[in-house]
Amino acid sequence: MIPPMDAADLRLSDFQKHISDRYEKADRERGTPGTWLWFSEEVGELARALARGPRDNLEEEFADVLAWLCTLANINDVDLAAAVTRKYLSDRRPQGHK
Amino acid sequence: MIPPMDAADLRLSDFQKHISDRYEKADRERGTPGTWLWFSEEVGELARALARGPRDNLEEEFADVLAWLCTLANINDVDLAAAVTRKYLSDRRPQGHK
Repeated sequence: MIPPMDAADLRLSDFQKHISDRYEKADRERGTPGTWLWFSEEVGELARALARGPRDNLEEEFADVLAWLCTLANINDVDLAAAVTRKYLSDRRPQGHK
Repeated sequence: MIPPMDAADLRLSDFQKHISDRYEKADRERGTPGTWLWFSEEVGELARALARGPRDNLEEEFADVLAWLCTLANINDVDLAAAVTRKYLSDRRPQGHK
């Protein structure tokens, strides 16, 4: 468990590991196709919150999509922090647009 | 720009701000509905990479989905690190499952 802290200091790697520590065993048993269905449900809930609100719910839906993205990364052995660093923060990052 | 660093130390808030610094003006002009289309395209590319590979592409697709999630959060004034801290790392976090 990550100790209480300022959210601004949260490391992406620590959040991904937290999701792994709490959920990865069940997530791996479900597998990628089944986990994709859960991820997709959260993406749909984010779409609904963006379209209709309310705002409190919007923040929670963003959190859920990120948590399920971490889950998909965990069960596919992808390090999200390394992936975004390589793509967006290295010398070969996109120059004009994403 | 975030200086060269160990990916494990990347703060979620710094990555979200990096995406804001580089892309937010254009992203806000496009608006949430149009940006959702771009996000959805990246989600689709991640699905394809999970289904078919190759692995190098898989990591890049995870990076792109996270970058576009940051974009959607930026143009909707949502702090992702605060949102996940509140939902997953506070006393009222889910107990059994996400």
